[in-house]
Amino acid sequence: MINKLIEKIRKTNAPIVVGLDPMLSYIPSHIQEKAFQEYGETLEGAAEAIWQYNKGIVDAVYDLIPAVKPQIAMYEQFGIPGLQAYKKTIDYCKEKDLVVIGDIKRGDIGSTSAAYAVGHLGKVQVGSKKWAGFDEDFATVNPYLGSDGVKPFIEVCKEENKGLFILVKTSNPSSGEFQDRIIEGRPLYEWVGEKVAQWGEEHMGSEYSYIGAVVGATYPEMGKVLRKIMPKTFILVPGYGAQGGKGADLVHFFNEDGLGAIVNSSRGIIAAYKQEAYASFGEQNYADASRKAVEDMIADISGALEGRR
Amino acid sequence: MINKLIEKIRKTNAPIVVGLDPMLSYIPSHIQEKAFQEYGETLEGAAEAIWQYNKGIVDAVYDLIPAVKPQIAMYEQFGIPGLQAYKKTIDYCKEKDLVVIGDIKRGDIGSTSAAYAVGHLGKVQVGSKKWAGFDEDFATVNPYLGSDGVKPFIEVCKEENKGLFILVKTSNPSSGEFQDRIIEGRPLYEWVGEKVAQWGEEHMGSEYSYIGAVVGATYPEMGKVLRKIMPKTFILVPGYGAQGGKGADLVHFFNEDGLGAIVNSSRGIIAAYKQEAYASFGEQNYADASRKAVEDMIADISGALEGRR
Repeated sequence: MINKLIEKIRKTNAPIVVGLDPMLSYIPSHIQEKAFQEYGETLEGAAEAIWQYNKGIVDAVYDLIPAVKPQIAMYEQFGIPGLQAYKKTIDYCKEKDLVVIGDIKRGDIGSTSAAYAVGHLGKVQVGSKKWAGFDEDFATVNPYLGSDGVKPFIEVCKEENKGLFILVKTSNPSSGEFQDRIIEGRPLYEWVGEKVAQWGEEHMGSEYSYIGAVVGATYPEMGKVLRKIMPKTFILVPGYGAQGGKGADLVHFFNEDGLGAIVNSSRGIIAAYKQEAYASFGEQNYADASRKAVEDMIADISGALEGRR
Repeated sequence: MINKLIEKIRKTNAPIVVGLDPMLSYIPSHIQEKAFQEYGETLEGAAEAIWQYNKGIVDAVYDLIPAVKPQIAMYEQFGIPGLQAYKKTIDYCKEKDLVVIGDIKRGDIGSTSAAYAVGHLGKVQVGSKKWAGFDEDFATVNPYLGSDGVKPFIEVCKEENKGLFILVKTSNPSSGEFQDRIIEGRPLYEWVGEKVAQWGEEHMGSEYSYIGAVVGATYPEMGKVLRKIMPKTFILVPGYGAQGGKGADLVHFFNEDGLGAIVNSSRGIIAAYKQEAYASFGEQNYADASRKAVEDMIADISGALEGRR
């Protein structure tokens, strides 16, 4: 799956991923009203609004991008109907041949991680049959529990040709509270990064490992160091746009081959129509605004990468 | 909710929680067969088997215990139908007046943690209405992202009278890989424990905080230290029984008042009928075997606590 992701990045010339993290407040009123008319102001109504909103965005941008990253929390907050919209979104994106990164940040003791891995990336045995629960292509994983909480995910990836992005240095303001603490002269996130590189070494695609890392765009200097600690690791970079990261901050997340990273933007793309720069599209044309925002993001990042050469 | 948990622990004289972590391999064949007859060997069939199995156990033990802890991964592996069984299990346990600890180990950047918190412990706004998605009483949370990943959970707990158990030192063999690393002379888990105690100080029930901690039964010496670092923190202790923890190992997780900890057993209770000690019950009477295993666990822990006095 890492090979497919890289191939699609090359083809689109866009090392970016669109974060499908819908909030009801982002969704144009005509979509909300229609969904509520059909299902009422219920969890089902919210789920329908999310799904229609996502579909509009995916239809408008799928040819420009290699991948999407739905954040499961934004669906899980609407209970079972929300998770049905999550699954519907995954299936639709896969129909459009997009690589789907499930931003699930799961991680637990071995047997429990195995269940998450099977549910999100693999197939679960039921009697004589096997079924896929969510079937994302990649999943994000939390490393706090150590190797035996991560390995069951790696095993399922190996079997099923899927991949992971493991949290190393997260994009949020307080990520340093534990992640930056110094252990034998080096911050925790470097130790985690080293582990990710080790786990990845034995699990290689053609050029990069299918065991990737998450490093926030908001910490470019740390990204530079981690890039070197994890040379064969693909880095998922959240925090671009709304969280403050800019194209110029991102060049050091990439290797000299122009690969090795994929930058996520969520709100900046899916709620572009709410920004001054794209307001002229209007609420009705929110998806066109998202397309323009994707084009601008690609230009920003490509420009920064070319500027480096 | 921490007050209710403590009141129920006092009433049952049982500082224990039953982990409802069903694996299909634990479920007696008569339950599986009936479910598969009705729904086929499908995710729906698996979910029905899990639900019937859980119901049998809950009916057999609810009067002996204060709380249950369903591990969401065991349901999530069966996709949407599995999560429907999770929700059904929560609702049924609440009908039986059990405190429900959702073992979800979520944790993300602020806005995302807020969505998880709302979905599991609070209510989500849809138009002019508010709905609860999963509605557990407590949830487990992963602290790797720091304060701003935890605080949205705390805020929802405050509003909704719910509670948390934050991972401090987990029960699995490789938990030390990152959690035990030494930072300024003390292991990371102590720093996390200190933070949990701080977060908890401002969020007190009558005797204990509703911001609790998870510390594995498999590390009793560390539990002893953490008990002192977090005097007003209720500790959820997994790892008893199948993972190797014993009653005598657990006394130091409790305070002198006999409170301050609640010990989880999952497989040891729900699949008791598979153990030699309870094999005489037979597969058909799996729930009676679970009841006996609960009684034995209560006796083991009460005995150890009394032995200390």
